[in-house]
Amino acid sequence: MKYELYYWPTIPGRGEFVRLALEEAGAPYRDVARQAGKGAGVRALVRLLGERKNDKPPFAPPFLKAGRLLIAQTANILQFLGGRHGLAPLDEAGRYWVQGLQLTVMDFVAEVHDGHHPIASGLYYHDQEQEARRRTADLLANRLPKFLGYFESILARNSRGHRYAAGARLTYVDLSLFQIVAGLRYAFPRAMSRAARRYRKLYSLHARIQERPRIAAYLASPRRAGFSTDGIFRHYEELDR
Amino acid sequence: MKYELYYWPTIPGRGEFVRLALEEAGAPYRDVARQAGKGAGVRALVRLLGERKNDKPPFAPPFLKAGRLLIAQTANILQFLGGRHGLAPLDEAGRYWVQGLQLTVMDFVAEVHDGHHPIASGLYYHDQEQEARRRTADLLANRLPKFLGYFESILARNSRGHRYAAGARLTYVDLSLFQIVAGLRYAFPRAMSRAARRYRKLYSLHARIQERPRIAAYLASPRRAGFSTDGIFRHYEELDR
Repeated sequence: MKYELYYWPTIPGRGEFVRLALEEAGAPYRDVARQAGKGAGVRALVRLLGERKNDKPPFAPPFLKAGRLLIAQTANILQFLGGRHGLAPLDEAGRYWVQGLQLTVMDFVAEVHDGHHPIASGLYYHDQEQEARRRTADLLANRLPKFLGYFESILARNSRGHRYAAGARLTYVDLSLFQIVAGLRYAFPRAMSRAARRYRKLYSLHARIQERPRIAAYLASPRRAGFSTDGIFRHYEELDR
Repeated sequence: MKYELYYWPTIPGRGEFVRLALEEAGAPYRDVARQAGKGAGVRALVRLLGERKNDKPPFAPPFLKAGRLLIAQTANILQFLGGRHGLAPLDEAGRYWVQGLQLTVMDFVAEVHDGHHPIASGLYYHDQEQEARRRTADLLANRLPKFLGYFESILARNSRGHRYAAGARLTYVDLSLFQIVAGLRYAFPRAMSRAARRYRKLYSLHARIQERPRIAAYLASPRRAGFSTDGIFRHYEELDR
């Protein structure tokens, strides 16, 4: 069975957390909105959101079709893929622990996004730039150290070694932490310049994930969308203090 | 076994979504931070967040102790309680569907909160009132209709009747939708004055949940914290247009 991922085609965004899990799992998938032809493209995505016949439409991308299952919400999709592809702990406590971490990652992602869009996601950045400066100043001074410090401490506290966030094996939340470090370094090169020393374990997690064969192949492929001034992690010179 | 809920004692906040599930389930629980004495109070909550010996500390409340399990993040806790207490579908597709809806509820809750705190959760409302006016105007004009319209359509599309969001039985997401309607009516009485006609099914869900024996008893008890100008759903005259 081939998975079908539905996400906006041109940005990494929240879809990227799902792509990383699919790629690491070596799971066959169609990135539907990036393909052309019948039943593909952004049209196919939008159709599924609004379809009258569909009694369980998702609120927003990303969502994943897995046979007859249609799963919405990034963390929900990752929980599903994690269980199916050995990217989650097998024991109950471990599963809830990893999912709690993933939901904390998603909270942080929303805060990073709101750094450049503190007023309305429907307005352009330049229409809320003054507020964005104020919110991002707080993000960099308070929220970023709080979240990254937390994740660093989770790696440090892991009684099964400091290579992964939970237990002795890779889980989906490690892939998401990789993406967060990558995104923040792109968006805030100045603010993050001293972060390598402060968040050593997170940075070395990032470096290790990057070298995993399937992830390395993915990052080198055209499937990996670059960061830009669209999506979650954006670089605006004036916000990077 | 008695559950232990950890949440800030004086506000409904995100903890309230968990309380509603515990109350509907008739599950015995201690609301730890509201109790006095050894191992209780806000101190006990803060201790668990920062404890050095704890290798799996939560990032923030609410979190739930269930025997040896410690579960963080509202939607994660609800997924756990739902499975244990018959407040979630039994089939896989249903479980992911309900959890996707719950995560969408939590996204909306974060947006409602940011209506009055668009710049920094660490600053007072009055230090970001100008930005809050702008953000709440967008919330009421665009985001609230989008989310409530979505939930209304989910009730309308439910092929098993319009009483619940998913299938023919109550699930934890119905309890959360109840809380959202209650909170919005408190926070925005003017903006919500015509909502009863627009979101008929959501409003009648709210009315039905309110009359369920255990929920009715809970709402009449001192355990139910009222809304105020703390927490997520706040009433500020100037924001309610």
